[in-house]
Formats: sequence, structure tokens, C-alpha cells
Amino acid sequence: MQWLRKHLLTIRELSVDEITAALDTAASFKEVSSRQIKKVPALRGKTVVNLFLEPSTRTRVSFELAAKRLSADVINISAPASSITKGETLKDTAKNIEALNADFIILRHSAPGSPKFLADRLNASIINAGDGSHEHPTQALLDVFTIREKLGRIDGLNVMILGDILFSRVARSNIWALTKLGANVTLVGPSTLVPREFEEMGVRISYKLDEELEKADVINLLRIQHERQRKAFFPSIGEYTSVFGLTLKRFQRTKPGVLIMHPGPINRGVEIANEVADGARSVVLEQVTNGLAMRMAVLYLTNNAQVGTRPGATPPEVLPMKEDEPS
Amino acid sequence: MQWLRKHLLTIRELSVDEITAALDTAASFKEVSSRQIKKVPALRGKTVVNLFLEPSTRTRVSFELAAKRLSADVINISAPASSITKGETLKDTAKNIEALNADFIILRHSAPGSPKFLADRLNASIINAGDGSHEHPTQALLDVFTIREKLGRIDGLNVMILGDILFSRVARSNIWALTKLGANVTLVGPSTLVPREFEEMGVRISYKLDEELEKADVINLLRIQHERQRKAFFPSIGEYTSVFGLTLKRFQRTKPGVLIMHPGPINRGVEIANEVADGARSVVLEQVTNGLAMRMAVLYLTNNAQVGTRPGATPPEVLPMKEDEPS
Amino acid sequence: MQWLRKHLLTIRELSVDEITAALDTAASFKEVSSRQIKKVPALRGKTVVNLFLEPSTRTRVSFELAAKRLSADVINISAPASSITKGETLKDTAKNIEALNADFIILRHSAPGSPKFLADRLNASIINAGDGSHEHPTQALLDVFTIREKLGRIDGLNVMILGDILFSRVARSNIWALTKLGANVTLVGPSTLVPREFEEMGVRISYKLDEELEKADVINLLRIQHERQRKAFFPSIGEYTSVFGLTLKRFQRTKPGVLIMHPGPINRGVEIANEVADGARSVVLEQVTNGLAMRMAVLYLTNNAQVGTRPGATPPEVLPMKEDEPS
Repeated sequence: MQWLRKHLLTIRELSVDEITAALDTAASFKEVSSRQIKKVPALRGKTVVNLFLEPSTRTRVSFELAAKRLSADVINISAPASSITKGETLKDTAKNIEALNADFIILRHSAPGSPKFLADRLNASIINAGDGSHEHPTQALLDVFTIREKLGRIDGLNVMILGDILFSRVARSNIWALTKLGANVTLVGPSTLVPREFEEMGVRISYKLDEELEKADVINLLRIQHERQRKAFFPSIGEYTSVFGLTLKRFQRTKPGVLIMHPGPINRGVEIANEVADGARSVVLEQVTNGLAMRMAVLYLTNNAQVGTRPGATPPEVLPMKEDEPS
Repeated sequence: MQWLRKHLLTIRELSVDEITAALDTAASFKEVSSRQIKKVPALRGKTVVNLFLEPSTRTRVSFELAAKRLSADVINISAPASSITKGETLKDTAKNIEALNADFIILRHSAPGSPKFLADRLNASIINAGDGSHEHPTQALLDVFTIREKLGRIDGLNVMILGDILFSRVARSNIWALTKLGANVTLVGPSTLVPREFEEMGVRISYKLDEELEKADVINLLRIQHERQRKAFFPSIGEYTSVFGLTLKRFQRTKPGVLIMHPGPINRGVEIANEVADGARSVVLEQVTNGLAMRMAVLYLTNNAQVGTRPGATPPEVLPMKEDEPS
Repeated sequence: MQWLRKHLLTIRELSVDEITAALDTAASFKEVSSRQIKKVPALRGKTVVNLFLEPSTRTRVSFELAAKRLSADVINISAPASSITKGETLKDTAKNIEALNADFIILRHSAPGSPKFLADRLNASIINAGDGSHEHPTQALLDVFTIREKLGRIDGLNVMILGDILFSRVARSNIWALTKLGANVTLVGPSTLVPREFEEMGVRISYKLDEELEKADVINLLRIQHERQRKAFFPSIGEYTSVFGLTLKRFQRTKPGVLIMHPGPINRGVEIANEVADGARSVVLEQVTNGLAMRMAVLYLTNNAQVGTRPGATPPEVLPMKEDEPS
């Protein structure tokens, strides 16, 4: 255990030891969610505020459930329904939440750097749940957790990230995590969505999926945001699928032990074929399960840092709830 | 106790013994909600997801409170606010929820059969909270519970279902429950809303309310969905009320011990007069109270089936919370 | 302790002893929220329904967290998302909630007197969370709590309420509380927003802020509702700020120990300058913290009245949760 941070803002700033501490802790918490009574008292009496100023259900629910399984009290504040932000700066909104003695603010916001902005100004632990196209650290941690669990290691693996990378916080956080842990990362997609600038992050870029299929140990597909304006970036959905879609035919050319990953929600028949998404090498649903374990781990670790628990000494409190112990 | 099902999908498939088990269990749980501390630890550490893909507040709140009084953790996901379903099939949405180790998915959905569709594909318990015009099983169970509690029996009673029956899942589930338990069911309403096809379900049909008033032991009114397009079905609201509204004058011709029921929300002055809705024979609010008890019972019974509790042996765990017992 | 009421409807009807009981109880509960485990078991097994039929996030979250820190179960029902009210009267909605054995209904509603209307008809405790332009009692209680905490007393203090008073429930409730406790209250603002009728409540009125600055021990600013149609009331926002805004220059003329208060959210640069809002004399964020403590106190006191606890005998149950005690 080498985790001293009370915030989780980016993968970029994490050391290999810190990432490893998160992975190891998540492994303990994954077991908790498979119990009959899937709760531990680690965060009892703590207040977790889900401040989601961009629409999200999946990530919000994952964090909400993670907090509840740690016995915390959870408050959801979402943008469209929220008057809290009316005429208010983000800082004022967050200061008001902190004034309720909130211990954690889980922030989703369209502005890159907004979690760091809050962390510099508040006492509460800030957890970045996605800030614009900047980072989505818990997604990257759950992705590397899933790879390590399935393939036993990250170091030396060939990981392909495929698709709509330009504005993707998932891609950026994954690139940081994977390269720190020694993976060889290749970005694949149309040149309009995979600019050369990414090479500065230590990755390889390819615009020809068919030349890359046989090399990858892991293919992590990103969702094509076809709801948004993407006309400038590729001619049509059908065109995209024909050149960059992971069809069954393409899948058959991949390594036997390849992992197929996707942060969801998947566009069936667009970036991935049904047979591949539902096939034996797909770990899409395990990513969801692991995401919950990872979010429990992140809340647990940042809480310990917050209350000043001596690092390196405390094993995860994942003992079962006692019969007479409060939930 | 003869309940082995981990899902509650329809009344149609339930045996008389199963319905009776639900009624008896609900009686125990009704008492819990009258306590100072109205909780029991039966579902502690379980996760209940309210997946309401059609708008609903009443049924959602009833299920949410039922789950909380059983000490479960509850997550609400509703359609308009939800991005979880964006570009996703229902199956993918539900699989994602299950991947969070949810124990229960309470589903409201516009598609008839959607709960069964999920039950065939998931490990979580699926509870049907209304699927299109198909079934609304907990509503029917709470209705027969209320009748049995008030009149001591179901067998042999004359039960009138009055109103907007054509697309009503409440009517369908009630017909199944009442006929299984031996009641004589009569459907009453305009012929456009009460088609002859219903006779195949073992009920009598009448288009003349005034000829039926004196026969009924129970009158269960359905809400006239006048927000929706109903012009094709009757000329006007005023016309409907004059022919099929339960006015005070009509009420005075009913049996002295008649029960007046309504699943709510009521349209005062449309399908029912104020004096009748608020009168001594109205059990509208008791239906709400009983609905909560019945939903606690259904969660309790399906949970026991899920964890493999030996049927026929376990009495409901409705002992009070101990002073030092977790909620 | 002299609190016998099971409802909190208005400040107008409270005695000085009752207000004092609320202030003293809130002081105990404020300490609870500073603990590592910020919960007490006082309302375990109770059901609190937040029925917010006008949009609100701040007050809803404050009540929600107050109830959770007292270990109650909380259900949120908000207007726009709610079908519970479709075609239903407020009374029917509330009766339906009560039928779920709710112990508390926290009501925000646009109609003045609506909490009283419910209190006359329901058994549940009704807490007024803002009824039109009538009252907002918990806001006034938290405001006087903050003044008493900071300045040691209310009696004899000069309290200025500044701004958009005409339709303000915050102003009305504050006037009742402050005058009962012996403060000298002065209302300041444009004559269109501060009509002479307020003098009947025992306050002084002034239309010249610059003549009042040096007299005030407390300045409580109200939010200028510039989103709403206010054209009839003052020429422009800039005009308002130049005459009634609490600029840095004006602040420098106030007493050294003045308290600057605001119920939030603040319009920076409109009714208050940044330097003042964030300055050493501003207690805006402490009001938020105290609001939570006060709402815990109100729920606690009305609950005791509801269950018939002997008044004057019970100290607040603010002992820490025991290790083996349920949350």
C-alpha cells in the first residue's frame, strides 16, 4: 500500500506504486460484492456527494453503489434538475456542498481541470468522474485492473485503443495508465480522430486496422459518438464500420487470447459486431463489475489518506459485516 | 408458504397457493410499517435497482420504500434522466445493471413481456412493476389483499372492474388473481373500452353500470386516462361521467358493505365523486398502505427463493430490529 | 427544552421559548456533523419524504442530509419528474404519501399556507421548506442561530435586511424571528421592493442604504431574483448595484464586527462584491453548515413531539454511534 492522496484527479500524476495499490485494493473489494451481504462498514457516517454536471447514469450509479456498499450516505446532485448552480460559480457550488460537511465530492464536469480546481480550494476529497476530454481516471484503473486480472500482467502487452480518440478522456487516462505500467499502446482510427500529437504520449499510431489485428493482446474500443456532430471527422457510420468496425471477420484474425474491451454503452453493429461483443473474449460486462470494485477502492484509499491513516499498514477493511454491526 | 419463484412476472402464472403465500406474508409485513422503527434486516446488503423506463412516481416510491424498510440498498434509474439506455438495448441495459451485482431489478417498461425477456437472460430477480398493457402483478396482489383483509375472503365475491379496461394492465392482473381465487368478476364500461374478447378470461361483461350496482361486493374503478387520446373511445369526459361515473346517487344504490377501490391517482368528479372517494366504504388509501406491505412481501419471498431458502419452513423475518442491530 | 409541536409551519406562531429550544438543540447537532462518523440513531426506522413541488436543490439536499444523519430513510419526490401529482390535488398527493406510513413530509410549494393545509389534515409531521412568499422557517432559524453563535445574542442588535423583500419568504420569517428575540430590524431596498406595509411587522424601513451602513450589527442580503421579471421594480441590474449593492467601498463604512449574511446562491457583483462575500466578516458558508444542524434539530424536536416524548426532559440524543450500533 503506497497511497497518500486524498484526491483522485488524474492518472497522469499517479506513480506505478499508486496504480498498483489501487489495483490490489480493488481486488479485495471485488470479493465484497460477491457476498450475500455485500457491504462493509469502512465509510459509515461519511457523506459522499455525486455532483454530476454533465449527464451520466452509468458512472453515477457505479459511484453511488460503491459508496453505499462502503456504508456511506450518498447525495445525488445532477445538472439539469439542479438549481444549486443557478447563477453560481462551480467554486461556490462546491464550497456550499463542503459546508454540509461532505467528505467526498465526485465531480463530472465538461471543463478539463475542474476537479483540480476544486481540490486546490476545498478540504473534501475530490474524485474526478470525467472532466471534459481530459481524464476519466477510474475508467482507466478499472480497465487495467481487468487486463491484469485476465492476462496476469500489463507489462509488455500490446494494447490497441480503437476509435474516437480525439476528444476521449477514456483514451487519455488509459494511455497514461498503460504506458506507466509498461504496455505498448497503439492508437487506431481515422486520421481525423487520431491526430499525430498523441505520439508525444509515448504511443504508436496506425490508420490501418487490418494491419494491426494480429498484434494486439487487448483491443479497447471506444464508443463512436455518432449522436454528436461527427460529420467533419468521417463520411458516414457505414463507412466507419467498414474500415474500423470490429466485425466478426476481423475478430477471427486476432490472437486466440485477445481481450475485447469497451467502456460502454456499445453501438452494436457500428464499432463492434454482436458476435464479438457477446463472444467469449469480450470482457465488457466484467469491466462494469470491476468498475464498482475500483470505485470502492478509490473511495476507501482516499478516505484513509484523508483521515491520516498510516500508509503501508492498513489492510482493506473488507471483513464481513458482523451480525450486530451497522450498515 | 409455497413460494419458489425468484421472479414475479405475471399473476397469470401463479398458483392459488403462491398467491395465498404472498397475501399471508404481506399481512406480516403490514405490521412492520406500523412500528416506531419500521424496518427489518431481511435484505441487508442486497441491492435493489428501480429501473423505471416509463414515468411513475407512486409505484417507484412504494417499491423504494419497501426495499429500504427491508434494509436493502436502492438505486433509482428513470428513463428521461437516463443516459444508460442511450443507443442501448434493454438487454444491454439490464446486463450492465446485473454486472453491478444487483440482486433485484424492478422493471417498469412499455413493452409487454419485457420482464420475462429479462428473467430469461439474467440472474437477478426481476419484479414486474407494469409492462405495457400486459400485467401489473403487485397491484393485483395488493388489491386482493385489501379485499381479503376487509371482507374476509375472495371466493364467491362479486367484483366489478369499472372503466378504462382495454389497455389496462391493472385490470388484466386483477382478473387473473380474482378468478383464480374464486371471485365472480364483471367488467363494466363503454363497449369501446371493454371488448368482448375479455370474456375468454372467465369474466362477465356489462355495458350498463346502473344494472350492476346492486350486485357488487367490490367496485374497483380504473383511472380514465383522459390525458391520452381517448376521443375514439367515448364522446367526452362529461358523457363518460354521466353514464359510468360512480356518483353519489349511484353509490347509494350499492350494497351496504361494498368496497370502493381505485389504484390512483383518482380523477375527482370524473370516474368517481368526492363523497364516494372520501367516504366510509372507500379503501383507496388502504390500498396504498397495503401496496407497500405487498411489495415488501414480494421482495422478501423472491429473495428467499433466490438464496435457496427451504420453502415452507421460514417464517417472515419480521422480528423488530434489535437495539444494536444494523438498519 | 420547551418544544411540543409536531409540525414546523411558521416562525410567526413560535414562542421565544420554542425558538430558543430550536437554537439550543441545533448547537448540539452541529457538533455531530464534525465527527468522523457524523450520524446519530435518533430517527432510525422513520421515513422522511421530501416533497418539493417547486424546484430546489440546496434546501432539499440540506433536509435530505439532515434526515440521513439522523438515520432516517429518505424519499425524494420533486415536481417536474413527478407523476404523483398528475390530476391530483395536493391533499390527495399528501394523503397518499402518508398512507405509506411516512413520518415526515417536508413540503416546498408555491402556495402560501399549503403546509398548514396539510398539517390540518394529516397525521405526519409537516415541515415547511418554503411556501410561496409566506414563510421559510428553517432559513430564519438558521440565520438567528448563526447570529447568536457569532455575536452571542440577538436582543438589542441592529439587523438590516437588504434587497428584494417584497416577495421574500426569507425576509418574512427572519422578521418574525428577529423581532420576537428583541432585535431592531431595518429593511432596506428600493421602495418598489420594500413597501410600507412591512412596518406593521414592527420593523423600520429605509430607502437609503448609505445612511444605514454604520448602524448595522448584521446585514442580511437577499438574492436579487434577476432571472424573474423585475423590470417593474428597478431600472436595471447596474442601477440596483450602484444604489443598493454591498460594494467594498460601502462595506468599509460598516461596523468592524458586522456580520454579512446571505441565504444563497449569491449573485457576485450584483447584490454583493466578491471581496465582501469572501471576506472575514462573511458567514455565508457557515449559514449552510448551520442550516444542516438546524434541520437535524427540527426533525429531532418534531419527532419527539410526535412520539409523545415528555418535553423538558430529553436531552438531544447526540451520543456517538456505538461501534455495534446501526446507522
